Amino acid sequence: MTDRTRRAFLGSAAAATAGLAVAPLATPPAQAAAPATGKQAPGFYRFKLGNLEVAVVSDGARPRPIYDGLVRNASKDQVLAAAEAAFMPKGNFISHFNPIVVNTGTKLVLIDTGFGPRTGPTVGLLPSTLAAAGIDPKTIDIVLISHMHGDHILGLKTLDGALAFPNAEIKVPAKDWAFWMNDDNVAKASDDFTKSTFEFNRAVFHGIESNVTRYEWEEEIASGITAIDTNGHTPGHTSFVLASGSDRILVQGDVTNVPALFLRNPHWHIIFDHDPEQAARTRRRFLDMASVEKALVAGYHFPFPGLGYVEKDGPGYRLVPALWVPWL
Amino acid sequence: MTDRTRRAFLGSAAAATAGLAVAPLATPPAQAAAPATGKQAPGFYRFKLGNLEVAVVSDGARPRPIYDGLVRNASKDQVLAAAEAAFMPKGNFISHFNPIVVNTGTKLVLIDTGFGPRTGPTVGLLPSTLAAAGIDPKTIDIVLISHMHGDHILGLKTLDGALAFPNAEIKVPAKDWAFWMNDDNVAKASDDFTKSTFEFNRAVFHGIESNVTRYEWEEEIASGITAIDTNGHTPGHTSFVLASGSDRILVQGDVTNVPALFLRNPHWHIIFDHDPEQAARTRRRFLDMASVEKALVAGYHFPFPGLGYVEKDGPGYRLVPALWVPWL
Repeated sequence: MTDRTRRAFLGSAAAATAGLAVAPLATPPAQAAAPATGKQAPGFYRFKLGNLEVAVVSDGARPRPIYDGLVRNASKDQVLAAAEAAFMPKGNFISHFNPIVVNTGTKLVLIDTGFGPRTGPTVGLLPSTLAAAGIDPKTIDIVLISHMHGDHILGLKTLDGALAFPNAEIKVPAKDWAFWMNDDNVAKASDDFTKSTFEFNRAVFHGIESNVTRYEWEEEIASGITAIDTNGHTPGHTSFVLASGSDRILVQGDVTNVPALFLRNPHWHIIFDHDPEQAARTRRRFLDMASVEKALVAGYHFPFPGLGYVEKDGPGYRLVPALWVPWL
Repeated sequence: MTDRTRRAFLGSAAAATAGLAVAPLATPPAQAAAPATGKQAPGFYRFKLGNLEVAVVSDGARPRPIYDGLVRNASKDQVLAAAEAAFMPKGNFISHFNPIVVNTGTKLVLIDTGFGPRTGPTVGLLPSTLAAAGIDPKTIDIVLISHMHGDHILGLKTLDGALAFPNAEIKVPAKDWAFWMNDDNVAKASDDFTKSTFEFNRAVFHGIESNVTRYEWEEEIASGITAIDTNGHTPGHTSFVLASGSDRILVQGDVTNVPALFLRNPHWHIIFDHDPEQAARTRRRFLDMASVEKALVAGYHFPFPGLGYVEKDGPGYRLVPALWVPWL
């Protein structure tokens, strides 16, 4: 007896037993199968922080192969083992990309912009995420860049080279601008990642220099958003403290890459760290602060929605993901 | 200098320096502040499991106070400490409610129905979640009940008493039906939770008995969905194996309540367990199986989206949340 025939059988058996009184409630005839949707939920998540309304607006996620040299001071096998322990897909780690929108009440601030339109297919999703979240790119007042790597800046422009956030002031860390926009440094770049980062910065910022302002550490960028020095990953790498009333959150940027690898092993030097020793010192200092404060931390490369608490665990740390809740 | 005046100043300074050529790109005038949205993202999340398309469709979440007796064999202080270690709000634990929709290709199956319209305000959200996910309640072919507690069955009816899933066959575990619908058992109920559960079942199932069929453990409910015996939490408490091709996931129902308390302390007896000793034996057996298999587990009370892997950790277990990804 198939499901369909069993249902028909049970329906008529029940009707026969109970009589006409139950007819309106009897099991209805089989219906056409609903098609699969093939469509993921939009990747945004909101929360209130005092008077601020904050939205994590995903640019997507992607698997990245684990190869010799990805971590300069750990073997491929060590990295593979850490990824496997975190149930990552075999041979890969999955990295997320979590820009953030902060509504301060007077300003709409976007922190970092994702990969833009040329990388795809599972990243560069920020425009569709913003649309799903009901945020018009034209209403962004400030685009705040944590550091000038491709996955943070390429979303500043659309496919045709126009400004993706046409009414926004673009604020970049002064020390990163000084480093990445200095032509003397280009020739010194010794690896492909650094070379491409110089190229990306030139491609993105060419012609829009007048829209860019440079900020310093300790500066209050907008009401409740303060830049803090977390250099090492890049010369001007910056994190942010968001604060309102007694609420506070640390927006770490790339102090660590994915937590399953780099919170567990904070001494590891990922190939993307510009000054790996300094990055590791900064990481230790930042994670110690976060764990002592029991602060909520937003991580650009944490699993979406990229929010959690840092606890010390053995020689490293562990991320305790914040709980999703349906309210603001 | 305010942000607004600084922007105006920098804009005109740049224009003065660079001349008319940059005028179209100069920082535009200040715009009106964007209003806060006040609106959370919809709580659904999809993934493919072989040929099955699965969607976790949240009914919401809510804080619950921690009180003496919530865990029969642990002190209030012990439970408070476990909740605090998981960064729960002081004095409370947060429980999630995660129904699941499975599209088998021929059937649309909803597993559990949430609180329905009378509980609110942060639960009973299943109808709005389904709408956001593009799932019409009329297209549900089977509502599959894991066990007959209020937070799993009350969503079967709308506020006016109509069937919330009017074209669905309702499948309940035979052993739960035998227990909860037996009038002889009502008088034996010794606590408020059990008494209210008898009442809820009568309120929900009265008049729709002919829509209900009873299933047995080991039965294949629909293609790829098999019921397995995990009794203890209720006499007929059931989990499900979803399987397609080489993919497999365990839908645990209430084998544990929230992982931060009950995976960490699998020997704890929550007050909602009908037979706490049997529930604890079942929990151990299930979690051992999940950790050895490295199986993806869906938990009705896990933090949304309620998906993760179980690893042994000391005397208990730990949930490693599955990674959100933007693809299916």
